[in-house]
Amino acid sequence: MKPAPQLNRQCILAARPIGRIKETDFAWRTEPVPVPAAGQVLVHNRYLSLDPTMRGWMSEFPSYLPPVALGAVMRGTTIGVVAQSRNPHIPEGATVMGMLGCQDYALSDGGDLQVLPPEPALPPTTYLGLLLPGLTAYFGLLDIGKPQLGETLVVTAAAGSVGSLVGQIGKLKGCRVIGIAGSAAKCAWLREELGFDAAINYKTEPVFERLQEACPKGIDVHFECVGGPLLDVALTLITCRARIVLCGMIALYNATEPPPGPSALGNLIVRRARMEGFLVLDYLPRAEEAFADLLRWYGEGRLHYRVDVVDGLEQVPCAINKLFDGTNTGKLIVKL
Amino acid sequence: MKPAPQLNRQCILAARPIGRIKETDFAWRTEPVPVPAAGQVLVHNRYLSLDPTMRGWMSEFPSYLPPVALGAVMRGTTIGVVAQSRNPHIPEGATVMGMLGCQDYALSDGGDLQVLPPEPALPPTTYLGLLLPGLTAYFGLLDIGKPQLGETLVVTAAAGSVGSLVGQIGKLKGCRVIGIAGSAAKCAWLREELGFDAAINYKTEPVFERLQEACPKGIDVHFECVGGPLLDVALTLITCRARIVLCGMIALYNATEPPPGPSALGNLIVRRARMEGFLVLDYLPRAEEAFADLLRWYGEGRLHYRVDVVDGLEQVPCAINKLFDGTNTGKLIVKL
Repeated sequence: MKPAPQLNRQCILAARPIGRIKETDFAWRTEPVPVPAAGQVLVHNRYLSLDPTMRGWMSEFPSYLPPVALGAVMRGTTIGVVAQSRNPHIPEGATVMGMLGCQDYALSDGGDLQVLPPEPALPPTTYLGLLLPGLTAYFGLLDIGKPQLGETLVVTAAAGSVGSLVGQIGKLKGCRVIGIAGSAAKCAWLREELGFDAAINYKTEPVFERLQEACPKGIDVHFECVGGPLLDVALTLITCRARIVLCGMIALYNATEPPPGPSALGNLIVRRARMEGFLVLDYLPRAEEAFADLLRWYGEGRLHYRVDVVDGLEQVPCAINKLFDGTNTGKLIVKL
Repeated sequence: MKPAPQLNRQCILAARPIGRIKETDFAWRTEPVPVPAAGQVLVHNRYLSLDPTMRGWMSEFPSYLPPVALGAVMRGTTIGVVAQSRNPHIPEGATVMGMLGCQDYALSDGGDLQVLPPEPALPPTTYLGLLLPGLTAYFGLLDIGKPQLGETLVVTAAAGSVGSLVGQIGKLKGCRVIGIAGSAAKCAWLREELGFDAAINYKTEPVFERLQEACPKGIDVHFECVGGPLLDVALTLITCRARIVLCGMIALYNATEPPPGPSALGNLIVRRARMEGFLVLDYLPRAEEAFADLLRWYGEGRLHYRVDVVDGLEQVPCAINKLFDGTNTGKLIVKL
């Protein structure tokens, strides 16, 4: 048995945020590194994924997962290495992915872990930057959005980890793809490197006019990551039998009062259109299906991703707001 | 050939309404009764259906049908008798249903007419009160809502022509059915005569609390005829994989500014739920399927409908507002 490291730093939920997350909503705790019981493994976390949905877990309202309790370790998805194993199915040294929380070490009975295959040996950032958001992008677009060859796909938060993959998968499926993002640099990346047909900077351009120009035949599939006014604009431009995929509503997660929804909802009737939400958790049993396609496309150079890596667990309380203020491009990851 | 009657009164769209329809938005014209050309029939309209969607046709904005032109006969669905026929497929004396407009007589080439079967000889009010809204209720509920045995169904405008049939079909399919309506008398009708499990008067009762009580397991299917705040309330109570059927948004048709939409739309994500609009026009080719079931259930005494018959074409400009101020119960029909 390897000598156990001494201490486990834990990022604790100290207060339920009101509006934007404050650094004081978190606190720190240091405890001895726990020792696995029979059947358990001790995972040394190496990378932590920061995701918009974490804002919801910090609130007091139950959602698809219960709220993180005050005083508990903040929930988060990590990739780590098994430092000690008393579980016959998971060897020491294995790389695993799971919801192991914002801490250096965690115990698990293995049931909530995905053991990552040793071959192809991918850097952990590929799992977090490509496969984790890729799972959401893949099933959200293909299973809910059902894009058809020649259709027009619009993606919001298009330079985000999920949005950038949605747009690229849309191109692979033969769609005309338009991305909406929040800076000229992001729009240039979408157009020039990811092959989007058009990209609109919603902060500086008249979105309705530009979207109307970019979608002369209307919007067949709209992939919504943001919520708020852009959804209303998209609703006015949908085609007959359009599908609106609700993936996230980043714009609303920090709202202290629920903002009004889109007023053009009646267009769903006129256009016989469908708006549908989904959670990637429901697709975990089908993860291999997505991973196979994503890795193949990536290997062929047809899928690109970006990671934005922040160094050190202590950066979590500050870095998490990058998800909401638009300063990250691609997948936001903390290296522990 | 029968002697042609002398004059055809026509209710003309004179102005596009702003807000509530005013009587002065209509004008009257009297012209000689037209004479059918080869292939045409002359229909003598006997009953005119008044429907909320007519408000949309009066606006300047194209929808699923083009706007009625100013100066043109107001569009409307009628039942009439073929007074003269020069179409070999439609005999004189046949009862037909079609969009023949707010007028005493209309010409048609037959392509837009449904010839009603002579047997069973149903009163025209049964076609307009049961089969016409029944078509909307049947396909909207069964094809879009897909209710399952034991599920909870909520219907808004539940005492309206469509809503009252939706709730009854829901009961026939084994659902727990809750109706929301605007008066104690309407609620009593739903509970006592139509067999709804509960009915809520949204004008006098706290809808959220009452709906929460009446739907202890949440709302599986929500059939929306109204739009506005009730939709937001329903969204907060939906179950996992719930279906929200958007049939109409009566509350919005007279709005001069588009009111904000529901703020609880994010619940579609958390609940992996679907919101979908439909138009009955798309189901006309499958009408026989619905009619067979509706007439069978009606014949077995398991389906009830009410008509609210107004006498005289000249009542159209005034009576149409009954659809928006909640003073009609069941199907609103004008006897010509």
